[in-house]
Amino acid sequence: MVAQLSVVGTRAPRVDGVQKVTGAARYAADILLPGMLYGKIKRSPHPHARVLRVDGSRARALSGVKAVLTIDDVPRVLHAGAPAPRILNHIKDQYIFDTKVRFVGDGLAAVAAASEEIAEQALDLIAVEYELLPAVFDAEEAMQPGAPLVHETDRNLVVPPIVIQIGDIEQGFAEADYIVEEVYTTGRPAPTYMEPNACVAQFDNAGNLIVWASTQGPFMVRGILAEVLGIPVSKVRVICEHMGGGFGAKQDIYQHEFICALLAQRTGRPVKMEYTREECFLAGKTRHPVKVTLKQGFTRDGRLTARQMRYVANGGAYCSHSPGITEVGCWDATSLFRCENFDIRGYAVYTNNPVAGAFRGYGAVQSLFALNCQMDGIARTLGIDPVDFMLQNVVGEGDLVSAGHRLHANALEACLRRGAEEIGWYERHLRPRQDPSGIVKRGWGVGVEMHSSGASPFIKEQSNAILKMNEDGTVHLLTGVADLGTGALTVMAQIAAETLGIPYASVRVTAGDTDVTPFDIGAYASRTTFVGGGAVAKAAADLRTQLLALAAEKLGASADALEVRDGVVFVSRDPGRALPVRDVVKGEGGVPGRSLMSRATGEPDVAHSFAAHFAEVDVDTETGQVKVIRVVAVHEVGKAINPMGVEGQIEGGLQQGIGHTLTEDLIVDPKTGRTLNANLVDYKMLTSLDMPATKVVILELAPDPGGPFGAKGVAEDPLLAIGPAIANAVADAIGVRIREYPITPEKVLRALRAQQEQL
Amino acid sequence: MVAQLSVVGTRAPRVDGVQKVTGAARYAADILLPGMLYGKIKRSPHPHARVLRVDGSRARALSGVKAVLTIDDVPRVLHAGAPAPRILNHIKDQYIFDTKVRFVGDGLAAVAAASEEIAEQALDLIAVEYELLPAVFDAEEAMQPGAPLVHETDRNLVVPPIVIQIGDIEQGFAEADYIVEEVYTTGRPAPTYMEPNACVAQFDNAGNLIVWASTQGPFMVRGILAEVLGIPVSKVRVICEHMGGGFGAKQDIYQHEFICALLAQRTGRPVKMEYTREECFLAGKTRHPVKVTLKQGFTRDGRLTARQMRYVANGGAYCSHSPGITEVGCWDATSLFRCENFDIRGYAVYTNNPVAGAFRGYGAVQSLFALNCQMDGIARTLGIDPVDFMLQNVVGEGDLVSAGHRLHANALEACLRRGAEEIGWYERHLRPRQDPSGIVKRGWGVGVEMHSSGASPFIKEQSNAILKMNEDGTVHLLTGVADLGTGALTVMAQIAAETLGIPYASVRVTAGDTDVTPFDIGAYASRTTFVGGGAVAKAAADLRTQLLALAAEKLGASADALEVRDGVVFVSRDPGRALPVRDVVKGEGGVPGRSLMSRATGEPDVAHSFAAHFAEVDVDTETGQVKVIRVVAVHEVGKAINPMGVEGQIEGGLQQGIGHTLTEDLIVDPKTGRTLNANLVDYKMLTSLDMPATKVVILELAPDPGGPFGAKGVAEDPLLAIGPAIANAVADAIGVRIREYPITPEKVLRALRAQQEQL
Repeated sequence: MVAQLSVVGTRAPRVDGVQKVTGAARYAADILLPGMLYGKIKRSPHPHARVLRVDGSRARALSGVKAVLTIDDVPRVLHAGAPAPRILNHIKDQYIFDTKVRFVGDGLAAVAAASEEIAEQALDLIAVEYELLPAVFDAEEAMQPGAPLVHETDRNLVVPPIVIQIGDIEQGFAEADYIVEEVYTTGRPAPTYMEPNACVAQFDNAGNLIVWASTQGPFMVRGILAEVLGIPVSKVRVICEHMGGGFGAKQDIYQHEFICALLAQRTGRPVKMEYTREECFLAGKTRHPVKVTLKQGFTRDGRLTARQMRYVANGGAYCSHSPGITEVGCWDATSLFRCENFDIRGYAVYTNNPVAGAFRGYGAVQSLFALNCQMDGIARTLGIDPVDFMLQNVVGEGDLVSAGHRLHANALEACLRRGAEEIGWYERHLRPRQDPSGIVKRGWGVGVEMHSSGASPFIKEQSNAILKMNEDGTVHLLTGVADLGTGALTVMAQIAAETLGIPYASVRVTAGDTDVTPFDIGAYASRTTFVGGGAVAKAAADLRTQLLALAAEKLGASADALEVRDGVVFVSRDPGRALPVRDVVKGEGGVPGRSLMSRATGEPDVAHSFAAHFAEVDVDTETGQVKVIRVVAVHEVGKAINPMGVEGQIEGGLQQGIGHTLTEDLIVDPKTGRTLNANLVDYKMLTSLDMPATKVVILELAPDPGGPFGAKGVAEDPLLAIGPAIANAVADAIGVRIREYPITPEKVLRALRAQQEQL
Repeated sequence: MVAQLSVVGTRAPRVDGVQKVTGAARYAADILLPGMLYGKIKRSPHPHARVLRVDGSRARALSGVKAVLTIDDVPRVLHAGAPAPRILNHIKDQYIFDTKVRFVGDGLAAVAAASEEIAEQALDLIAVEYELLPAVFDAEEAMQPGAPLVHETDRNLVVPPIVIQIGDIEQGFAEADYIVEEVYTTGRPAPTYMEPNACVAQFDNAGNLIVWASTQGPFMVRGILAEVLGIPVSKVRVICEHMGGGFGAKQDIYQHEFICALLAQRTGRPVKMEYTREECFLAGKTRHPVKVTLKQGFTRDGRLTARQMRYVANGGAYCSHSPGITEVGCWDATSLFRCENFDIRGYAVYTNNPVAGAFRGYGAVQSLFALNCQMDGIARTLGIDPVDFMLQNVVGEGDLVSAGHRLHANALEACLRRGAEEIGWYERHLRPRQDPSGIVKRGWGVGVEMHSSGASPFIKEQSNAILKMNEDGTVHLLTGVADLGTGALTVMAQIAAETLGIPYASVRVTAGDTDVTPFDIGAYASRTTFVGGGAVAKAAADLRTQLLALAAEKLGASADALEVRDGVVFVSRDPGRALPVRDVVKGEGGVPGRSLMSRATGEPDVAHSFAAHFAEVDVDTETGQVKVIRVVAVHEVGKAINPMGVEGQIEGGLQQGIGHTLTEDLIVDPKTGRTLNANLVDYKMLTSLDMPATKVVILELAPDPGGPFGAKGVAEDPLLAIGPAIANAVADAIGVRIREYPITPEKVLRALRAQQEQL
């Protein structure tokens, strides 16, 4: 730990900022290669069918078509869509093309042609004969005996049920004065990243494959492409120079990535494939709609005695991350509020819906919605202020949380107290609760969350860094870390500069190319700063040691007696004895005196970040419209390496979280399995104009010894507490609780009507 | 050292072979970028002049011209043309443009235009006013007091004379029974690489410079560009994907590399500059014409008692490598044949000729020509067979050679004996010495050489390697080594594969990009396999240790008890207990079990390679034409990592050496300083059809402990002994010795005429 920081903690401008704002940054779809072809995928209009025959002859005959691929033209290797991220997810249930289609949008053939237009035309010329099969869309129905089977599994379960039993649940309920049981359901938001899925593939004459792809896990794409195509890993190079978002979904490998490579192999020409926005919705990944049944027992004085949860995740047609999000959703229900008796069961269910995958918040969004809202309800039942009730129950210093990690600060308590202060929680009764007409009701709500940085110990994580110091003391950092657009590479540069004691501008970052950067398992699980940054800090510490050893010779001092800061090495007790880093490494006559290089592997560890979100909302009781007026988001992050980046993550997460809570939902017709709003007009995302007044507070109370400079992850946290804060505020405003995301005007009006009928 | 080799020693196909034969390999001039401009340099028609005025206004006004640079538009930073290779060479005597021009071809202005044609036109529109200055072309004249001064130095010496005094020269000559003194002179061959000098420069929006250049020292180009342009090294990226030869000359930085970058900066567009073949001759680098005055004393029984040499190198207008080649030429005269008393003086001289630089053989070609030929003459004087005389005198086991290195084998003796056997040296008297007409005379000659691998201890050398093992056991090697076309990267891959115990095909090499590869000082001084390969071997040994540690866990054996060969780790004493490398590193569910990475720096060391060349020549006494009929080249290389590559080096060196000895000479008019044959019609290189029958023998007698698998350098050796072998064969054929390279028909006829006049 460095006492005085020069680079870490500053709002350093992004390493890729100029490139991005000038339009020079190249994304996968920007790649143009001579002779390039365009690929398209033929998709099923049926939710479940046997593919009896695919006839590509008419398509092949179309002028400008260079290749048509059907099941007979592609390797028949079973693979997992989620290449590696979690052991549990590694269920191999996909072929590039299969003899069945399992959702509307499932690909079954592909073409490469001289233009996108010809490729589209060619798709229409491919004749497919289907045998329609009964389909199932609802997860509970899918689990019933006799339901149509999506894959050859019992009860459409992707993996055996996840069961967490801690303490004695019977005893817990027996101790309770009250028991509450509720069902919470969540919608099907889609990540809707700015950059559609895209890739370009090219084989060289020596059989080496280069793939430019928009992916959170270039090394994972490399590995699975090599495996399925049957070529050595060393002959596959995956490049991702810049990304326009992924939000978790782009840690999977998609059909088009295989197909693009195969079309390039078949035609001997580079091939580009870019999803339309419609394809991103249909053939991308959504969040899992989950039905959470939450039952808790509590005492009169507000102590939780038992928590029982049933978590049923609708995974859609293929595995992707269904086991992983179910596992995280279930484990996260054991955290947050102290309780000793748990009985939690999670079910990851196949249905004939579009595939649900990894999405920022990864299973926890759903269970924390239920948990926070039920806590709010219990507080109201007991007549305790919700914040006071949470303060009474949140985990804190000394408490054991999931994975046996013992907390070393009262971070949640601090977040709650600070948020309450910022929003004026305890003075809210002094403010009007409705507009003069009485139509618009105002309410306040709170939600808390905690989320782990990285996926340890569930998977063996890996991030690596290589540093090279140049002869003028500037540095090249090679990192395998993927930057989804979050500013991750900026953070890596800051960590390297700070640890080395050189200016931020002296670090140049090379990333996004599997041939030249060291292995990284991918950008997900809020792990990049924590684990990837840890690797950089470790490599930089090694390089600093080498630098100080060299400086020690030149300064005639022991290396232990030296420090390096702002590009100058000096004797700690005699700062006048100093040498610029440049002069330490320079040699005579332009020959570098010593080549300095280092490499390190980030050690995974367990850490948690924390937040409390407060929302003030207006509910129009005539239209049912919920409007978020004000949000206070207090996050404990250990150390904000770049506060601007942390704020960006939080603000973006709030925007996405408000969307998921109120407006975003990909609607699948429960009769036909067709997606009804696969476009940006009917799928409603918040724009910046829809955003409430937002106050972001960053706390650095519990720096983690396993994170670089104490930093922990912040990527997913902002999405976890905002939803319950809003839902609780709506309940506060209108006196009735809506337990379904998204909280649409229809649901609000329906709830108000039911409330009135009850009265 | 590995007992049983699987990859090292095999004729492994080149890593870049397919790319090259299919035309896919990109050279600097193949780079095409959107909006690219073409740069050209305005060159002086005068050998020495003050530049009074350069008026670019008419050129600027020409449609399509985007920039004109004169002295006022470029940084005025004094720099060395030879960036770093040797401390001695780091004489800063060049500006990008100067107030004087110093040779015909010296650049003084430049343009960038939309096409090469417009750029050429624009050059003609640049008006220059010169004040002509007296010029000097002969090195001896240039050293005289009162000679025109090329730079502001005494007597036109680039550096103070090099003086080597060992033993007691007076005493040595006093002990001699005979003393011989002769003058040998060499011509001005040009490297004439297939790929002309070329570069493309581009600045991005963030001020980062990318340069694609045909260079032997990408890191050196990077360093000097950064220094002169005043930008951090980390913001300069030099890329050289493939090269079509350099032969030493491309270790310098050239005017066009600065200018190209400056034109790109000025115009905001990428700029390409490619030398015409004429420019390669005029503004490239030649070998140094050297006048060697060699005086030796020897006893009646054939023992050398004293060696005195005066070495005057005509360096042309700028320093480049003049001090370095003079130093090497002088030191190498202390080697080869045992002697205890030396007085050697070397002079590197400025003249108004094209610049002489580094060229394969680096100063030694000239001194070994004199030394070998004089030895041949002494043998004839003493009536001893030249081979026997050399055998009597060559250095061998236990002898100290330059830089205090003690030889550990009788390699020269072995080369001589094997060569004599192969060519039938001792039976040559049984063969006819002339054709039936008596016009064509046949002769046999021998030359020997030894050359150091790398430039240690004269400079602190540096090569580095990084290895990454993939999850399927294949490997990525990142090396800073430049491959001039020699196959260096193939050798690096072989060393990595052998050391790691994996198949050759499992190694993928990334090179030629300063951003991503570790630092390397450049490809010169026969150092790449020796030092660069050493770095690879060291990094691979580290990675192997990591691999065996991992395998030890899985095999339940101690790492010490394990071996790895052909991709399989096994227990040495129980080879049935084995695990493929792939299974050692693979993890569960596609997650690599452990990230393996290593990095290492090659330790420079001193080693020598050896050779004896035998030539059989026919001399046509009517035309003066010398025809080389047969060559036997025996090389001791320690270990041939790739015998095909070693043979290629030797055969190429012979071709170049025969050319230098007989035909190649860039002729500068001694009155005007103009080059008279700057084209491939009048500058005569040997084609493959001109090559003699050649027998190459590779010996591996003295593997060097400092080299990978004992390997030593072989790049320059083949050029050093062939010349004297031919010259001695010519003397053998016609009974008169020609002491001037190239041995042209005119010189032969003149010598024959003089001989007849003498009779």
